[in-house]
Amino acid sequence: MDLVDELRKGSVRALAKLITLVENEQEGALTAMESIYPYTGNSYIIGITGPPGAGKSTLTDKITKELRRQNHTVGIIAVDPTSPFSGGALLGDRVRMQGVSNDEGVFIRSMATRGTLGGLSRATADTAKILDAFGKDFVIIETVGVGQDEVDIIRTADVSILVVIPGSGDDIQAIKAGIMEIGDIFVVNKADREGADKLVTEIRVMLDLSSNTREWSPPIVKTVATEDEGVDTVVEKISEHREYLIKTGTLASKRKERIRSEFTKIVEHEIFRHFDSLIKKNTDLFDKRIEDIADKKEDPYRLAKEAVQIIAKQISCNAE
Amino acid sequence: MDLVDELRKGSVRALAKLITLVENEQEGALTAMESIYPYTGNSYIIGITGPPGAGKSTLTDKITKELRRQNHTVGIIAVDPTSPFSGGALLGDRVRMQGVSNDEGVFIRSMATRGTLGGLSRATADTAKILDAFGKDFVIIETVGVGQDEVDIIRTADVSILVVIPGSGDDIQAIKAGIMEIGDIFVVNKADREGADKLVTEIRVMLDLSSNTREWSPPIVKTVATEDEGVDTVVEKISEHREYLIKTGTLASKRKERIRSEFTKIVEHEIFRHFDSLIKKNTDLFDKRIEDIADKKEDPYRLAKEAVQIIAKQISCNAE
Repeated sequence: MDLVDELRKGSVRALAKLITLVENEQEGALTAMESIYPYTGNSYIIGITGPPGAGKSTLTDKITKELRRQNHTVGIIAVDPTSPFSGGALLGDRVRMQGVSNDEGVFIRSMATRGTLGGLSRATADTAKILDAFGKDFVIIETVGVGQDEVDIIRTADVSILVVIPGSGDDIQAIKAGIMEIGDIFVVNKADREGADKLVTEIRVMLDLSSNTREWSPPIVKTVATEDEGVDTVVEKISEHREYLIKTGTLASKRKERIRSEFTKIVEHEIFRHFDSLIKKNTDLFDKRIEDIADKKEDPYRLAKEAVQIIAKQISCNAE
Repeated sequence: MDLVDELRKGSVRALAKLITLVENEQEGALTAMESIYPYTGNSYIIGITGPPGAGKSTLTDKITKELRRQNHTVGIIAVDPTSPFSGGALLGDRVRMQGVSNDEGVFIRSMATRGTLGGLSRATADTAKILDAFGKDFVIIETVGVGQDEVDIIRTADVSILVVIPGSGDDIQAIKAGIMEIGDIFVVNKADREGADKLVTEIRVMLDLSSNTREWSPPIVKTVATEDEGVDTVVEKISEHREYLIKTGTLASKRKERIRSEFTKIVEHEIFRHFDSLIKKNTDLFDKRIEDIADKKEDPYRLAKEAVQIIAKQISCNAE
């Protein structure tokens, strides 16, 4: 495949094109991903999440700079959730990442659309793989943790960084136990604000209560990302965590978990595609069915079973 | 079906049991929904959404009281999103709805879990139907609009109320155009705060810019829900909007749109169920496949195609 060859040769144009292909669920996306897959597995994936306004973009920018200083190449996927009430505007995020956006060793991509068939996490996972095959040493996935989809994304990263800030009302009580468990490293950003030490203590207490089964004790790092304070410590902790994962064999099992989740999503997405194309080929029949349900001549549950049968038959018959 | 008979006879126990059935995706949920379907279509569905802290629960409580004063029965579905950073605690919400929770004419249910197969919006839609068949005149679905799922839920209501508050930082610029379009009625709650009139003007300007194709010009109502101020006007506007929908035939087309979206979700969910049970029946094979992908002996995209074929065959063979 031409585009994948170009990608492997370092073409940024091919990189961007391939990402667009998977993002828009265009024809050929699956085939492209098939040829890309063998070249993946070399990038280290960093997930950064936290509530709106926690300074995730600035932190991403500064972590990237630190990684660049160490001569690593970086790909950034900024997931813009579909939240209609998102605090941070997309444009603002990009402005906050200006520090690295002119660096050739850094590639930044926003994921805003879900496509027609859903699947933000699938598109993000595929994009991470494309950046991986392109040769990026690190892929940072930055997302505001507002929905299950976003949490799923972070859960599959090699290391998950949870960013919180003092005195935001988003105090630690509001952070549910579930999210505490996905954090490998906690960052108390804007730590020059009042209440930073109190927040650190609160996180420590919650961690002690919840994670006694974990061998890795998540460090809590205070940062002022805008002033570059503490960012080097975050990068240090990422390295320490990585060594821990490798030493204990956890990295392999973590990645197997990621594969399991991604594989399931690919299968679901493939079935959706069949369903979608079936509807598009039979618009009239589909509309008629909707009319029947609306008129109570049919119930949607019985028809759904029928539709599933039709889809199954369709898939079987189209098999080579 | 026993439980559905009991539901129709007014058993609250059967009501609660049926909701649990669909929420937990238990065996028999689909069959129960089939027998419920003919009794649906009589409830009027009110969707209430807005950012965390906008006072949605209090407003829901007060609107319910007003509807009760008019002798209508009400079912409330409080969707608690899976957001790990949700501002309002679930317990707090229930406290804010205390005003109606002891009223026999009101049934309140929280939807917090997504179940193993996803589908918060499917569970919510099914619960609304159960409340409908139970005989509730109104079903209020209250949700914080954080994700696509939640927006989908509101989009399928007969009337969508968008609640915002002055000076929250969630000013109108932060509310994306998409969400503006789903609002049939805008409520500026906590209107005793500074900036309420300015917010009303801003919403009006945005509406004028965006919705010139709509015949219905969304009213903007100022409320102080905690003081019961303006709530009667909101209920009045709900009635006016309902008359408009009936008069113009929009109610029927809106409901058809809802059926279309629900039907699609039921089909997808059914396919997921097949996939899920297939995995559970073949854990060893599935694990082996994951190993092969991890070892790069196989790629997940090719295997996904294969899995889709297996699922399709499985579904076809299990057909009666």
